[in-house]
Amino acid sequence: MSGRYFEDFVVGEVIDSPEPYEITAERLHAYAAEFDPQPMHLDLDAAKQSIFGRLVASGWHTLSVTMRLMVASPLFESGAVVGVGIDKLRWLRPVSPGDVLRARAEVLEARPSGSQGDRGYLVLRVTTLIADDTAVISQEWTVLVPRRPAAGNT
Amino acid sequence: MSGRYFEDFVVGEVIDSPEPYEITAERLHAYAAEFDPQPMHLDLDAAKQSIFGRLVASGWHTLSVTMRLMVASPLFESGAVVGVGIDKLRWLRPVSPGDVLRARAEVLEARPSGSQGDRGYLVLRVTTLIADDTAVISQEWTVLVPRRPAAGNT
Repeated sequence: MSGRYFEDFVVGEVIDSPEPYEITAERLHAYAAEFDPQPMHLDLDAAKQSIFGRLVASGWHTLSVTMRLMVASPLFESGAVVGVGIDKLRWLRPVSPGDVLRARAEVLEARPSGSQGDRGYLVLRVTTLIADDTAVISQEWTVLVPRRPAAGNT
Repeated sequence: MSGRYFEDFVVGEVIDSPEPYEITAERLHAYAAEFDPQPMHLDLDAAKQSIFGRLVASGWHTLSVTMRLMVASPLFESGAVVGVGIDKLRWLRPVSPGDVLRARAEVLEARPSGSQGDRGYLVLRVTTLIADDTAVISQEWTVLVPRRPAAGNT
């Protein structure tokens, strides 16, 4: 394992995804067809009659893209981060074709695991952003990150 | 709109997904390649060296499948349910190829919206299950569901 370990993360640190991801109509359709086949995500007329009045991506698609964005960031450099849970997730705004997504994680908390000496918990506020830094999802992740092997963990 | 409205959901009610969904190696790979391209989800050797010791699905894949399962249930019959947020999500166990997933939602809370008279909030405990009713994800959804149009909402 290389890269960043538990000890390298500092409360208050902000980690940005290195590259953006565009929600195209094709990607929106492919995800919705497999995982969220509601007419409002698949059919233009149904989309116009929906509460959004236009075609919007499944919120679960935006969430999946958020993971893709963060996986490419230093947060996952150890190659051994394990997702524990999500709290306080809110879908703030809908996402439509042409929106380009980025993600940002702020370290809220870092504590060694009581039961697993070779790991530590990070709590992160993860925000998914489109143009003009508009937040479309806000959530808190709890992840388990390996500690540095040479640190002599007990 | 047809089907079930806010008024039709009762606290304590349990809603099961009507049909199961199998995590195949091909589906696992397709999702991970697009949304969670970590070696432990894409490469058998990396999977064996991971904390899980075997190939496991991305937790975000299992989450996406949970939405697919619930979309087919009576919860979404109105065709106009809007996801507000997720709380208390925990990935309890990993999922591997061959696991067949089902989902179950229990209505924890139902309250009319204060600002939108034609809608109401439901809070649901959603559990994703594999064989022997083993839970792999537990989470709480808050969704906005349309009220029955004829009910004379103010």
